[in-house]
Amino acid sequence: MQTSTNTPTTSQLDPRARFCRALASSVTETTPPIDRPPVWLMRQAGRYLPEYRELRGRHSFWEMVRTPELACEVTLQPLRRYALDAAILFSDILIVPDALGLDVEYAAGGPRIRPLLRTPRDVSNLLRVDAERDFAYVRQALELLRRELPRQLDGDRGLIGFAGAPFTLTAYMLQGGPSKNVDEVKALALNHPELYGALAERVADTVADLLALQVEAGVDAVQIFDTWAGHLSPEDYERLAAPWTSRVIERLHDRATRRVPVIHYLRNCAGHLEAAAATGCDGLSVDTSIRIKEARRRLPNNMFLQGNLDPAILRGPLEEIGPAVTGLISAAGSERLIVNLGQGLTPETPPEGVAALVEAVTHYRQC
Amino acid sequence: MQTSTNTPTTSQLDPRARFCRALASSVTETTPPIDRPPVWLMRQAGRYLPEYRELRGRHSFWEMVRTPELACEVTLQPLRRYALDAAILFSDILIVPDALGLDVEYAAGGPRIRPLLRTPRDVSNLLRVDAERDFAYVRQALELLRRELPRQLDGDRGLIGFAGAPFTLTAYMLQGGPSKNVDEVKALALNHPELYGALAERVADTVADLLALQVEAGVDAVQIFDTWAGHLSPEDYERLAAPWTSRVIERLHDRATRRVPVIHYLRNCAGHLEAAAATGCDGLSVDTSIRIKEARRRLPNNMFLQGNLDPAILRGPLEEIGPAVTGLISAAGSERLIVNLGQGLTPETPPEGVAALVEAVTHYRQC
Repeated sequence: MQTSTNTPTTSQLDPRARFCRALASSVTETTPPIDRPPVWLMRQAGRYLPEYRELRGRHSFWEMVRTPELACEVTLQPLRRYALDAAILFSDILIVPDALGLDVEYAAGGPRIRPLLRTPRDVSNLLRVDAERDFAYVRQALELLRRELPRQLDGDRGLIGFAGAPFTLTAYMLQGGPSKNVDEVKALALNHPELYGALAERVADTVADLLALQVEAGVDAVQIFDTWAGHLSPEDYERLAAPWTSRVIERLHDRATRRVPVIHYLRNCAGHLEAAAATGCDGLSVDTSIRIKEARRRLPNNMFLQGNLDPAILRGPLEEIGPAVTGLISAAGSERLIVNLGQGLTPETPPEGVAALVEAVTHYRQC
Repeated sequence: MQTSTNTPTTSQLDPRARFCRALASSVTETTPPIDRPPVWLMRQAGRYLPEYRELRGRHSFWEMVRTPELACEVTLQPLRRYALDAAILFSDILIVPDALGLDVEYAAGGPRIRPLLRTPRDVSNLLRVDAERDFAYVRQALELLRRELPRQLDGDRGLIGFAGAPFTLTAYMLQGGPSKNVDEVKALALNHPELYGALAERVADTVADLLALQVEAGVDAVQIFDTWAGHLSPEDYERLAAPWTSRVIERLHDRATRRVPVIHYLRNCAGHLEAAAATGCDGLSVDTSIRIKEARRRLPNNMFLQGNLDPAILRGPLEEIGPAVTGLISAAGSERLIVNLGQGLTPETPPEGVAALVEAVTHYRQC
């Protein structure tokens, strides 16, 4: 018997195994070998793809999110084009305020959420969410994906569930929509801390239940998106955002029967890196506000990192994409790294740019 | 003769002296003693003041900017209410694209700049700016202020000139207005580097000439606002923004007959702190993305810091403002510090909040 057969083979890892191994370092004792870092892209299913726009032309956004077959189809679209190692459920962070009984409308200027919550009574009047009932469409879409990923594609893929972080969702609900900053939320939190706390708690518990349901449905990892927390000062981040994300992660691990890695995304993370890492997540999805090497230096050694290519490079000369990818992997190291963008793909991105990025990762070989 | 008469007295510093001493550390060898940190606030003249809205109701924004008597009056308004140590000229960063011949309109959704520049020829067709002629109204307003500040107020005040940084102005001109990110600018810089470079150079040289004129008109310091550079990755900041700011500062010091301290403001500075400090500025105006103590730790010891209170606290309970101010000064140290906000005052700010902030600084005594 040759010794080489005792070594796990890394040359033909299927994409799902590659994805799971890259995230495993924080959960298991030893880091399993990996051939190259896995790659997926935030908003990889979306408007930059003609096949998405075609489907979107025939269905409303809510129809696509709530119909398991449509959500599954949209999730698969980018994986038919590109050798991505993981799929992320096509859904939206605003399914949480929707389940809580608010009216969520997708308009041209961004989503609009009504009615505005202004008293603790408004919060206690929100609907009680039963995740199995109210997010049944999420479970069904994920179960469908778990079956269809290996069936429709060449090799199984990682499957990622997600939800918005309590701060970002609470901010959306208090503001009634997006905002260029979170001044209104900060003012409400200062003047009506009981309103802020009551709402954040309701949101956090609903988010945890949603993520637990996703774990039960078979995802390999979950990502918590705190898109707006980067507008907060470090003090406010530690007061208004981080404790609620910690609560989500704690409750998720209490409820779910399997332990899956938690990826935590924070936009404008440069000033909040250590505090975001301390929420109990297993790895951070890092935006472009910081060099990935600097993030590595500041974070615990066993955390994985995800990120942090600038989506703008996908709109520039194609020949500059490969060097950017190689530069990222050399800077971050190829272990405990998931190649991704610093923020979501924009509708203006040319599909060839995405192809060049994914190809650069799949062709990556360590020197 | 008593020894105490040999020590410079700090108990009755006039506001202008206090302001200038706080900034002097980087320019002079010794740090002169100071009784307390000076305070001024970004956008201290503006819509949160009823007397501003009253004047604005009778004049267009451009009229107010271009009429020295009106600009002087608006600049003085907050100083009549609050014991601020410095005045900042009421003006706008978009006077530079205006002087370059573009049409700048102030609309409800933000300024609109036309025509859009898309070729190097568009850039070479921009008007040649003669600062003395085209910014004569700036010089006149500053000269008027230099006279009126000690005449109308109790004790002279510091006087600050300002301009937009080349990156922020170039971004405005390429986008034609504000944007929630700078994706278009990054895409243009990647695909048309010659357009980006030509425009940034024209802008940088015009900004330097404008600042030199402000120095000649008697300001005690200038501030360069790079509001949008914080949307860039550290790599792009060092490529697209920092070199042009350096060019401005170098050219300013070449042209101006007096050496005044340069304050550099960067929004979302947490990831760019060292690079921003290396542009040749004398001090950084720090936004809320980072703790001021952390900024002190990372920056050269002789730099002054300005900032970084969150304007949101001015909308919360008044009794929490004093402790926030004291906390800032203890964290930053009272030397080489100018108390300010992390970003501009918003129209929603109650004037009593501003009063409480300024009072907390003026009553500050070192323990």
